[in-house]
Amino acid sequence: MPNVYAVIMAGGVGSRFWPRSREKSPKQLLEIANKGTMIQNTVKRISRMIEPENILVVTNKVQKPIVAKQLPKIPAENIIVEPIGRNTAPCIGLAGLFVRRRDPEAVMVVLPSDHIMLDEEEFRRVLNLAIWVAYESGKLITVGIQPTRPETGYGYIQVINEDDGKNPYFSRGVSMVKTFAEKPNLATALQFLKSGDFLWNSGMFIWRVDAIMGEIERLLPEMYRELLKVEDVLDDKSFEHVLETAYRKIRSISIDYGVMEKAKQVFVLRGDFGWSDVGSWDEVYRISGKDEQGNSVTGKAFLQDTKDSLVYAGDKFVATVDVDNLIVIVTDDAVLVCKRGRSQDVKEVVDYLRRKQISEYL
Amino acid sequence: MPNVYAVIMAGGVGSRFWPRSREKSPKQLLEIANKGTMIQNTVKRISRMIEPENILVVTNKVQKPIVAKQLPKIPAENIIVEPIGRNTAPCIGLAGLFVRRRDPEAVMVVLPSDHIMLDEEEFRRVLNLAIWVAYESGKLITVGIQPTRPETGYGYIQVINEDDGKNPYFSRGVSMVKTFAEKPNLATALQFLKSGDFLWNSGMFIWRVDAIMGEIERLLPEMYRELLKVEDVLDDKSFEHVLETAYRKIRSISIDYGVMEKAKQVFVLRGDFGWSDVGSWDEVYRISGKDEQGNSVTGKAFLQDTKDSLVYAGDKFVATVDVDNLIVIVTDDAVLVCKRGRSQDVKEVVDYLRRKQISEYL
Repeated sequence: MPNVYAVIMAGGVGSRFWPRSREKSPKQLLEIANKGTMIQNTVKRISRMIEPENILVVTNKVQKPIVAKQLPKIPAENIIVEPIGRNTAPCIGLAGLFVRRRDPEAVMVVLPSDHIMLDEEEFRRVLNLAIWVAYESGKLITVGIQPTRPETGYGYIQVINEDDGKNPYFSRGVSMVKTFAEKPNLATALQFLKSGDFLWNSGMFIWRVDAIMGEIERLLPEMYRELLKVEDVLDDKSFEHVLETAYRKIRSISIDYGVMEKAKQVFVLRGDFGWSDVGSWDEVYRISGKDEQGNSVTGKAFLQDTKDSLVYAGDKFVATVDVDNLIVIVTDDAVLVCKRGRSQDVKEVVDYLRRKQISEYL
Repeated sequence: MPNVYAVIMAGGVGSRFWPRSREKSPKQLLEIANKGTMIQNTVKRISRMIEPENILVVTNKVQKPIVAKQLPKIPAENIIVEPIGRNTAPCIGLAGLFVRRRDPEAVMVVLPSDHIMLDEEEFRRVLNLAIWVAYESGKLITVGIQPTRPETGYGYIQVINEDDGKNPYFSRGVSMVKTFAEKPNLATALQFLKSGDFLWNSGMFIWRVDAIMGEIERLLPEMYRELLKVEDVLDDKSFEHVLETAYRKIRSISIDYGVMEKAKQVFVLRGDFGWSDVGSWDEVYRISGKDEQGNSVTGKAFLQDTKDSLVYAGDKFVATVDVDNLIVIVTDDAVLVCKRGRSQDVKEVVDYLRRKQISEYL
């Protein structure tokens, strides 16, 4: 069995959960849809497979203390701090340096910190298979989610559903990626759903560290060169300074665009374990338990003639009268009242606050 | 010219402005529709006619310190504290004791503390005429408001619009009351509006103190007997104790029901000065200035695709997305989201809190 390391990407400064998410308390550090914060649940979910010593978390300076506090079992040296956000490719490359130092043949499981999976047993089954395929094949593996609706908010992965003889894992339910597709419009999403060939891009990756670092060297050579400079000083006092200099030179690029779409052979495992990226308040409503009136209520509230609404009262008291299909989110200093289906526009609120430099609510 | 005293009734513990109004901060002590609290504006409105020494305020124990603080020009001895609320008749009788001690022939102007008048000049003109008629005639005078819509939330006054020879003030625009009508249903309210004979009962009264005390003696003799016991000890140490004993015996009754409806001759002056009793959040919306989208916003807020809504942000930040016809009221510890037109149901929220004994939000 290979050494397995998990890399949890936790640097996001999501604005889609305003007013709960703020610069200092992004989504992954909040209790959004379950007991425990999203990152705590992410760690809990995999810690039955991977011991805490092998779990790395990549975050930023502002969030580091909260991450460390929320994850007391993760060793301090496993929490990696990026000086600035540069999207997922540099984040994964940086984590790769720490993994290959410990074991150049290790398998690296890259996971977002802010997703949920309802069926955790099935999730771990898929992940175990992916680890096995990644170790044996030396290829890049991703998990594609069985779509349940024509979602326009996700990227898609088109898979090869026939056995073309080039895929030794086909009988194990592992497909090869045909192409990666950007977020589609509704018509295209409907086609994707109908075709049966498309899966949602989950942002989960499994690979040997030598495989991904090799692909980064091949496809993102400038980035790789900067990463090598950082690798030279991993234990040095100059680490932070060298890292910052490197990151200033590294361009912002996603692993999907920078590597996955250009890689030669990518395998995809079909995930059907109640996955959600919990990308918006609308999605929180979708995955939440509801009462008979279709309301999902957290905190102290009195709902009169109210239906199909999401109410988060924080530590306040919320009363609603004769409303429906609303999202009502209350925090210490701010209140959001948003029509259900429009929660992507919460970004507009955050943009407004940025534009007006009203930083106290950011 | 007679001595004129104003009696401002400020004991109400309104629940219709929850979450802003609470037991300790009822409507009259809040800035609801204008700069300044409602009671401050009530005093300001009449202090151009009546000096502060002649303005009495009747309130309760809990509110007294706030009343005194909000009205620094009113002498402390002019703030009368009722031990318990017993509706308007005992309140007026009690104030009458204080007025007639100063001048038994004085005219007493009784005003609610929580109404607004847009045209204050006209209000004072009507009040001056009422004072003159009250002094000269010795009759009870009330102000009826020219109705502008078939309101079902107010009582009405039917007036005699013809000169029947019994009304010496007819040529001055003073009518005699034919009857008082309870809050009507919509069909009746429409009839009232159409007839032209009906005015809204404003709860403002003007009379000589000897006239009203005489009518209380005649129509509410038991109450009057208790009031006499209180009158005996107005300056005594035992005042508070005697007052409380009296109030425990006095039954709760409104001046309308106890006196006005049974009094022999009541004059009514027509008020057309932009009056509102500001009885609900819906009424606040009605009388508020609105922007082009029909929104009335107080405080820090960002409204996206929002129209015809009332937003009060308190000291929080409120964002709304794709909503209309909403009332959103935010205080330190509570939030109300209510469909416009349903703000009378705020009482249901308060009832719920009482039933569940969640007193912190009451």
